[in-house]
Amino acid sequence: DRQATDQIWRLLNNTMVPAEVAHALESSPPREREELWTQVGPETQGEVLLYLSEEVQDEFLDRMDAAELLTATENLDTDDLADLLQRLPTSSIQQVLDSMEAQERERVETVLSYPEDTAGGLMDTDTITIRPNITLDVVLRYIRRHEELPQSTDVLWVVTRRDELIGRLSINKLLVCDPSMSVREIMDTDFIRLDALASQNDVAQLFERHDLISAPVLNERGQLVGRITIDDVVDVIRDSAEHTVMSMAGLDEEDDTFAPALRTTRRRAIWLGINLLTAFLASSVIGMFEGTIQKITALAVLMPIVASMGGIAGSQTLTVLIRGIALGHVKTNNVRWLLGREMIAGMLNGVLWAAVVAALAIVWFDDWMLGGVIALAIVINLVVASLTGTLLPVLLKRLSIDPALSGSVILTTVTDVVGFLSFLGLASVIYL
Amino acid sequence: DRQATDQIWRLLNNTMVPAEVAHALESSPPREREELWTQVGPETQGEVLLYLSEEVQDEFLDRMDAAELLTATENLDTDDLADLLQRLPTSSIQQVLDSMEAQERERVETVLSYPEDTAGGLMDTDTITIRPNITLDVVLRYIRRHEELPQSTDVLWVVTRRDELIGRLSINKLLVCDPSMSVREIMDTDFIRLDALASQNDVAQLFERHDLISAPVLNERGQLVGRITIDDVVDVIRDSAEHTVMSMAGLDEEDDTFAPALRTTRRRAIWLGINLLTAFLASSVIGMFEGTIQKITALAVLMPIVASMGGIAGSQTLTVLIRGIALGHVKTNNVRWLLGREMIAGMLNGVLWAAVVAALAIVWFDDWMLGGVIALAIVINLVVASLTGTLLPVLLKRLSIDPALSGSVILTTVTDVVGFLSFLGLASVIYL
Repeated sequence: DRQATDQIWRLLNNTMVPAEVAHALESSPPREREELWTQVGPETQGEVLLYLSEEVQDEFLDRMDAAELLTATENLDTDDLADLLQRLPTSSIQQVLDSMEAQERERVETVLSYPEDTAGGLMDTDTITIRPNITLDVVLRYIRRHEELPQSTDVLWVVTRRDELIGRLSINKLLVCDPSMSVREIMDTDFIRLDALASQNDVAQLFERHDLISAPVLNERGQLVGRITIDDVVDVIRDSAEHTVMSMAGLDEEDDTFAPALRTTRRRAIWLGINLLTAFLASSVIGMFEGTIQKITALAVLMPIVASMGGIAGSQTLTVLIRGIALGHVKTNNVRWLLGREMIAGMLNGVLWAAVVAALAIVWFDDWMLGGVIALAIVINLVVASLTGTLLPVLLKRLSIDPALSGSVILTTVTDVVGFLSFLGLASVIYL
Repeated sequence: DRQATDQIWRLLNNTMVPAEVAHALESSPPREREELWTQVGPETQGEVLLYLSEEVQDEFLDRMDAAELLTATENLDTDDLADLLQRLPTSSIQQVLDSMEAQERERVETVLSYPEDTAGGLMDTDTITIRPNITLDVVLRYIRRHEELPQSTDVLWVVTRRDELIGRLSINKLLVCDPSMSVREIMDTDFIRLDALASQNDVAQLFERHDLISAPVLNERGQLVGRITIDDVVDVIRDSAEHTVMSMAGLDEEDDTFAPALRTTRRRAIWLGINLLTAFLASSVIGMFEGTIQKITALAVLMPIVASMGGIAGSQTLTVLIRGIALGHVKTNNVRWLLGREMIAGMLNGVLWAAVVAALAIVWFDDWMLGGVIALAIVINLVVASLTGTLLPVLLKRLSIDPALSGSVILTTVTDVVGFLSFLGLASVIYL
């Protein structure tokens, strides 16, 4: 508890930046979180909300009234404000928009007009634009008229009279070049332009590949509508990487770590229910062979080994494929090679571990036949697991189903069913 | 194959940036990769290598001779060069260092003197420093003497005669302020400073929380030794998020998606072997109850359900905790609350799904007793799973063992053993 008191003390003394306050809120169980939130000044609440995961954002946004919202959002940048507004009901959005100056409102509405997960939804409109025909000296004087430049301004955008983007002038070039030169002479024309409707994952990939700090966003007529800066992209990168690990356990990357017990129970119940269906499917396969098991109980002892080896091998393949697809490494033209590689690896590991398991089974139960049956079943299950682990995520992706979310459930069902079926089926054929 | 030809064509025409070439290499099976690599010009090989994962880097570095290495690394930044050198044997490092000018060599050696995963290992030494007592006008003239500024230069560092960092002057401020003012008057003194020995994960967290573009790195005497820019940090963020998902399947985030079959087999074999040990442990538990199973074969049919429900519930809890620890949400003072929450959720879902499974078991096998036994076993296993899923990662973390790598193996062992033991044990007590 000393740590909690310490946090409140720091808050009161305003030594924490909004991101740190958000982190403290995310790290607190419900009651402490309440206490901390009451210590956040009304005008900094907006900035703090920006750094929270969606579930925690909603928790606080849901109970703020219009006046509180207005105070909290007063000092936010266009893109940040748009982010928050997207989480509110339409009536509240309108109230906030109505309270703004015409120019500012127009800028927010531009961002809101694009889907949240596109370049347009991610951008801010804080761009400084210049014309190509002026000299650097004029540019320097123009800039000096600003009290400060928008955050992370590393370039000025060169546009035509109709706002069409034709070049960019980096601040660093502006500083080192001869002031009597014209913008047109030294501007870059070879750089990355983002389509306002490009997906945020494509945007993130471009930023990573080209080490960008900021990039211009254009509408379908080639006009500059905004810019995206690296700090917005870092969130996208973090979220997309977290999405895989959370989805594979049936969870969401926006989930609150400290969600209350009842909400947690309800959310987990769905995933457990789905998995129960697949478990019953596996059980019904075992049920088909009750007679065999009654005669040779060693089968019941060993059957989980066959299923579990298949499950492990399959999820390794599945994970490699899901990551390869997410990173853009896996495409239609190289899936065939991967399938071959995985089948070979599955076969080789199948033979290796089948031999080990067979030897142990023979020693344990003093039954050579049993060793042969389990060895064959393991090889079959590992090959099927490799096949499924490779093709399933590719197929799901093509059907626009998230392979990270449904892949592991389907895969485990396949490896359980095939594992039990091959082991108990072979045993029935041989022993009965 | 048309896509592969297309890639080569684009390479030949130099329309791809090094990161795109690297991505094409990472997306290619061994033979195509070879072909592509031969098309990369000797002097751009260094830049391409930078964007490759470590495993693919090693593949190419291993067979480059000293002369090829020198050509490839000639035009690299200090931090990038140091990154590559860290992957080479000591003799090759010395050869490359010997070929460099004294000043440049000293800079690379500074970076190499820090461990790879610290701020010092991540930094570059391309800093522009100024003294506090000069006017902005002098600064502007000093900058104009450079032909170009180092990439992503957004601030100039203000240092004393002994290189101690005392402030920073942002380029944007330099542009908008009155040139007759002194550096001391307008420099910031309140900003994030990085300790050269800080871990790269701490660095990434600071960049994310404070939306930094660059930050200064200081040695233990407070002297400026380098700076870290956001593009280096983006790689750290991507790697650390990927680390969890890959580790949970016994894989590494630096693994090559297109590793050859034999290397893949060998790597996967280890993980399968470890999991086989835990599977045999579960089997030996079942083996203790062979007599009971022979009398009531329905137990063999239903036992995988008990184990699998525990496994699913446990890995959900485990995933939430591993992510919470990675994000810094979970600390000593809030683990108790999480434990309570997870136990309640485990208990409630245990009771809910125990009822469902019991009903189905009673209908299936027409045996009320069996329903009661499996219900109780499921509740026990889900509570144990919640307990293990919460405490295991915290304990592993405290022992400096990576919970993402070993957590799921240990958890599955626990839920399998407890599942079989409670279900078969209870059945033995009641039926025999």
